[in-house]
Amino acid sequence: MDKREKKRLAILDVLSASERPLGSSRITDILVAQGVEISERTVRHYLLELDDHGLTENLGRRGRRITDDGMREADDSRVLERIGFLSGKIDTMAYRMDFDPATCSGHVVLNLSLVKPSDITRERLRLIGKVFSKGYAMGKLMALFEPGETFCGTVVPDDMVGIGTVCSITLNGVLLKHGVPTVSRFGGLLELQNSHPTRFVEVINYDGTTIDPLEVFIRSGMANYIGAVISGNGRIGASFREFPAESIETVRAVAARLEAIGLGSLMFLGNPGQSIHGVPVGPQRAGAVIIGGLNPMSIFEETGLRVLSRALSGLVDFRRLFHYSEFREQLASIG
Amino acid sequence: MDKREKKRLAILDVLSASERPLGSSRITDILVAQGVEISERTVRHYLLELDDHGLTENLGRRGRRITDDGMREADDSRVLERIGFLSGKIDTMAYRMDFDPATCSGHVVLNLSLVKPSDITRERLRLIGKVFSKGYAMGKLMALFEPGETFCGTVVPDDMVGIGTVCSITLNGVLLKHGVPTVSRFGGLLELQNSHPTRFVEVINYDGTTIDPLEVFIRSGMANYIGAVISGNGRIGASFREFPAESIETVRAVAARLEAIGLGSLMFLGNPGQSIHGVPVGPQRAGAVIIGGLNPMSIFEETGLRVLSRALSGLVDFRRLFHYSEFREQLASIG
Repeated sequence: MDKREKKRLAILDVLSASERPLGSSRITDILVAQGVEISERTVRHYLLELDDHGLTENLGRRGRRITDDGMREADDSRVLERIGFLSGKIDTMAYRMDFDPATCSGHVVLNLSLVKPSDITRERLRLIGKVFSKGYAMGKLMALFEPGETFCGTVVPDDMVGIGTVCSITLNGVLLKHGVPTVSRFGGLLELQNSHPTRFVEVINYDGTTIDPLEVFIRSGMANYIGAVISGNGRIGASFREFPAESIETVRAVAARLEAIGLGSLMFLGNPGQSIHGVPVGPQRAGAVIIGGLNPMSIFEETGLRVLSRALSGLVDFRRLFHYSEFREQLASIG
Repeated sequence: MDKREKKRLAILDVLSASERPLGSSRITDILVAQGVEISERTVRHYLLELDDHGLTENLGRRGRRITDDGMREADDSRVLERIGFLSGKIDTMAYRMDFDPATCSGHVVLNLSLVKPSDITRERLRLIGKVFSKGYAMGKLMALFEPGETFCGTVVPDDMVGIGTVCSITLNGVLLKHGVPTVSRFGGLLELQNSHPTRFVEVINYDGTTIDPLEVFIRSGMANYIGAVISGNGRIGASFREFPAESIETVRAVAARLEAIGLGSLMFLGNPGQSIHGVPVGPQRAGAVIIGGLNPMSIFEETGLRVLSRALSGLVDFRRLFHYSEFREQLASIG
C-alpha cells in the first residue's frame, strides 16, 4: 500500500469510526493526534476525491459523512490488520460488550442477516424455530431490525429486514467480566448422528482467518441443519473454546445462568485435560463446544436462498431481544 | 474417539490406501506392522460390521474393497490429522508429483469438479475460456473424465463429467525437484481494479484450515471472475507463497519454463523482503502471488450452479491434459 492510499484510508477510518459527520479541520486534528502527518489542505483534497468516488458525502457545513460504499472500502482495506483477525475481533467484542446476567441489563454481541420479508416463508419460519427448539442455536432469543434502520454501520435496505441472532461471543464477554479468560480456538462443522455430536468434520482456526468460519460453512452449503432437526443426522456449526481448568465451576455457573435467561450456548464442557471429539486439550485447560449463534440462518441457504450474514456485527441492548416463538408476530408488526 | 472407533477407521484407512481388494489376513499384517494391536479374528469381526454399514464390500476370495461411502467416512474421520491439514496436504502432493518440465513427462496435481454435461452451456464455456485467456487460471491446460471413470478414488457419476484443472501446487512440486522449498502461507481473495491486482480482501492461512481456502471463496459466492474477465473489476482466488531469497533466479526460470508449456501460475514475484499488496515478507525470503488452479470453475457458481469441486484431488499424467480451447470438442467426443 502506498502513502497516498494509506492517507486516503486513514481518512475513511476516521469517518467510519465517527457517529456524526466531521469537517476537514476536525478530521485533520484526529489524524494528527494519531501521529499521521497531514495538513488540512491535503485532507480537503482527499475528501473531494473520496466524494467523487462515492465513498464520502459532502453535507455542506455539517461536514463529511461516510457512505455505505465507503464503509465497505474501509472494511475491506483493513485485511492486513485482519490476518489473524477473527481471534482479535472476538476478544475486542468480548471486551466491549457489557451484558450483566445478574440484572439482565446491558448489551450482547449480535450477528446480522439481511432478508426480504417475502423470503421468510412459513416453512422457513418452522425450520428456523426447530433449530432453536432443538438447542442448535445460541439460546432462544433474537432481534429484528426494520427497513431503513441502522445497526452498527449497516443500513437495512428498504426492501429487507435485519434478523439479529445472538453471537456466542457473548459467553466470552460474560466470562471475562467474571474474570475468566476464554481462548477461542476454531470454528468447526460438527457432525450429529441420532442427535448426538460425533466429531468435527471440518475446522478453521480463528487465528488464521479473516472470515468467520461458521459464516463460511453456512454460505458454502456445507452445513446441514435441516437434517439435524428433522432426522437427527446433520452437520452444525460449533466453536471450540478453552478455559483455565481451575475456572470450570465458574464457567458452569455462568453458563447455567445464561441458559436460564435464554442465552444458553454451552453444548459440552470437558474436564481438565480431557479431549473432546478427539480434539486434545492441555492439562491446565478445559475444552468446551459452543453452539454457533448464526446457525438458524443456515435454513435460508439450505432452502436455496443466498443470505448476506455478518457474524459479530455489533452490540445490541438485551431489551431489544425477543423469544424466537414471537418471530412471526414481530415480523407482522413491521408490516 | 474410542478404541473401537479407532480400529474401525484403521481398517478403512488400510483399504482406502490400497489399489486392490485385501483379505483379512493381509489387513491384519499391515495393521500389526503399523503398530496396531489387533488379531485377524477381530479384523474379520469389524469387516462384517463395515459390510453391514455399506462402507466395505465383500468380494469373496479376493477380499474386501472399500466403497465410496467408506472412502468418505475414512476421509471425514481424519479431521484431527487434518487440523493444519491443508499445509500438510500441499507438501505431500508436492512431494508425490513427478512432473519434469524439461521432458514434459510425469504427473501434475489436479483439482476435480463434477458437472452435468447439460450444465456446461455455451455461455459458461465462453466465460470459462475467458478466465483462461485473461491469465486468471493456472496455465492453459485442463482434463476431462468420462462418466463412470475413476480419478483417485472418486467415481464420476453416470450423468456427469469430471473437469480437471491443474492445481498450482504443481509449481511447488517442480520447484522442490529443483531444490527450492516453498512455504504456502495462505489462500486469499485478490481484488482486481482495471485488471490490476490491488489487495487481498480475505485471507485464510493454510496451516489453520481443513478446507482449501479457494474452494471456500468460490463455494460461498465471494469470488467474482465474471467481473474480472468482463470489466476488469473483480475478485479472484490467489495463493501467497514464499521462497528463499537466494532461489529467486531459479524460481523465475522454472516459472518461465512452466509458462511456456501451458502451466504458468506465477502472477507476481517479489524481491527479497519486499511486501506484496501489503503482506510483509521476511528479509531472507521472497514472496509470490500464485493464481488459483480452481479459478475457472467459479464461473459455474457465479452463474447459479452449485458444483462439487475438490482441490488437490490427485495426480494425472501430463499427456492427459489438453488446451482449454479444445474443451467443447473434448466434451462432444464423450457424449
